[in-house]
Amino acid sequence: MIYADNAATTKLDMDAFEAMKPFLLEDYGNVSQPYSFARAGKKALRQARVVIADCIGALPEEIYFTSGGTESDNWAIKGIMVGSKGSMITSEVEHHAVLHACRAVEELGGEVLYLPVNRRCEVQPDVLEEAVTSDIKLVSVMMANNEVGSIQPIKELSRISHEKGALFHTDGVQAAGHVEIDVNRLGVDLLSASAHKFNGPKGIGFLYIRKGTAIQPYMDGGSQEAGMRAGTENVAAIVGMAAALRKNCDHMRENQIRLRKLEQIMDDTLRKKGIDFIRNGNFGIPGNISLSIGGEEGEVLLHRLDLKNIYVSTGSACNSINTEVSHVIRAMKVPREYAEGTIRVSFGAGNTEEEALEVARALVEICK
Amino acid sequence: MIYADNAATTKLDMDAFEAMKPFLLEDYGNVSQPYSFARAGKKALRQARVVIADCIGALPEEIYFTSGGTESDNWAIKGIMVGSKGSMITSEVEHHAVLHACRAVEELGGEVLYLPVNRRCEVQPDVLEEAVTSDIKLVSVMMANNEVGSIQPIKELSRISHEKGALFHTDGVQAAGHVEIDVNRLGVDLLSASAHKFNGPKGIGFLYIRKGTAIQPYMDGGSQEAGMRAGTENVAAIVGMAAALRKNCDHMRENQIRLRKLEQIMDDTLRKKGIDFIRNGNFGIPGNISLSIGGEEGEVLLHRLDLKNIYVSTGSACNSINTEVSHVIRAMKVPREYAEGTIRVSFGAGNTEEEALEVARALVEICK
Repeated sequence: MIYADNAATTKLDMDAFEAMKPFLLEDYGNVSQPYSFARAGKKALRQARVVIADCIGALPEEIYFTSGGTESDNWAIKGIMVGSKGSMITSEVEHHAVLHACRAVEELGGEVLYLPVNRRCEVQPDVLEEAVTSDIKLVSVMMANNEVGSIQPIKELSRISHEKGALFHTDGVQAAGHVEIDVNRLGVDLLSASAHKFNGPKGIGFLYIRKGTAIQPYMDGGSQEAGMRAGTENVAAIVGMAAALRKNCDHMRENQIRLRKLEQIMDDTLRKKGIDFIRNGNFGIPGNISLSIGGEEGEVLLHRLDLKNIYVSTGSACNSINTEVSHVIRAMKVPREYAEGTIRVSFGAGNTEEEALEVARALVEICK
Repeated sequence: MIYADNAATTKLDMDAFEAMKPFLLEDYGNVSQPYSFARAGKKALRQARVVIADCIGALPEEIYFTSGGTESDNWAIKGIMVGSKGSMITSEVEHHAVLHACRAVEELGGEVLYLPVNRRCEVQPDVLEEAVTSDIKLVSVMMANNEVGSIQPIKELSRISHEKGALFHTDGVQAAGHVEIDVNRLGVDLLSASAHKFNGPKGIGFLYIRKGTAIQPYMDGGSQEAGMRAGTENVAAIVGMAAALRKNCDHMRENQIRLRKLEQIMDDTLRKKGIDFIRNGNFGIPGNISLSIGGEEGEVLLHRLDLKNIYVSTGSACNSINTEVSHVIRAMKVPREYAEGTIRVSFGAGNTEEEALEVARALVEICK
């Protein structure tokens, strides 16, 4: 099989799994307990926090473990907005974890402004500049789009937001582990990430919260995570997440080069064979290839590739049941005759040049 | 070592771990995707839901997977109360996941009434009867107390709540897998559970929501869990939870008999040796032994047992950093000269009669 849906989820790294095992099987003590049996877990938790902080240029105490990207996004948005005065700004192309959290904010009486994007799926800084006023409490723009891989000008957007006194959150779920992140260089106050998008386990993620940021807890209960996120710590998953992120960051440059090569192979093969397609986005996330193929249907392409044991996506994984043109493709104004033929091929760890060629050839065969 | 803190967390069952492994390592496809590579995960998810529903007498579509007990409690309470009119009732002895979720409701302008308990840590039905009015939207009373193991008269309490038109939630975290649960016999509308309390993995739990109950989602985003709980499904952990709950329920009677025997051994040994103690609660959860020992300090007892490689708790795991007398012990009005000497010994899977005797003897040695 060829797994080319790494933007939906990734294979758990074996080193990450090995790091998790002792905490699944032996050192299972509740790390909130003061006895010595909880010591190994406590130490592992501390180390994981240091490793993750180091990978994104943060302080360890700015990393809060969550159950994944969706929780991180919900927390960032509702933790700032619910029960407070003021409005917020986001973009039309955010992940549903952000868009639907915003809808929840609206249902509680909050106001949310949705910024458009250009043809490359980019939020343009001057558009934000015009929209942001001193009423705006939070601006949330994703670092990289999950459907088309476009990277947003986060540094510019956060600067503009801060000038008007707004906090800046970025959904970094699709970016973490794949492109360099430095929260200080980017100037973000909050950043969401999810382990299973960078070869860590499912069900775990983190929210970076800049020291001093006024945010309400989202999970109320015990005093875990400095009283900010209650719930017994999932040490095994946290340790696995840290190991996976560390490994991805340590090999980032070589991974990027390898993945760019796979993109090139896909591009070249499809072009040479005369396939009529648009490649969407600004080609930000290495290996993420969104193709809108003229006269085709994404759903049909997916299923025909499936029959060849090649796994790709029609759009966002979270929207796969919905066969309509996705909100992202619509916001980018991909021409109708191409939009319906959109698929996302997302290469990741382990994918080879031969596989890229095979995916391209299979696509050509199906489209011809 | 003797691990006697099973009310804080439990050892992952090996069969549960083996059930998880394929979904950690091989069948990692995102189950929101329509391709064949996601099929094994989808099937496992469906089966897990059926198994869990069956264990508590629910329908599969009434089981919603969450990241654990804290999320389930937060969802149940905030999903009913936030943004709605009306007040709620809970008890003084709830877990902090409930109490602090209630505080969050209060901070958003909601009203919460806290019911007292008797000396056995029981919420008395007539106390609820007097308190509940037609303004009450939700009553939340735990099925079993985490510190002292008292089981509440849930059937009575839910009946009284329903008579006044209130919904009834029970925090079943300490009960699930340990005592029989039938949501219909109990008459509850919502029930929280956490896998790591019944030898499942950490970071996973569920919320039972009776069909037709009007509740808002808590995690907004993708369309997972019938659109009610967004976030990529943690299939491995869900499968592990189902395997652990099934096993615990299948062996419930024999586990209970074994654990009652361990309780007896502890009780008898301490009494015979003339230890001056109160055993707290109504002895509901098998193996959960809360002792308040005259003239002792719980913290000291814990550390001296730790030196003997015996692991117990001073109270709620979520409160272990706090060395004050817990809110539960206070609410039960345990006499001051005993209250400070409170420890919780909680036996579980794998604990033997020899171990119970050893714990009792160690306690005697320390107290003498």
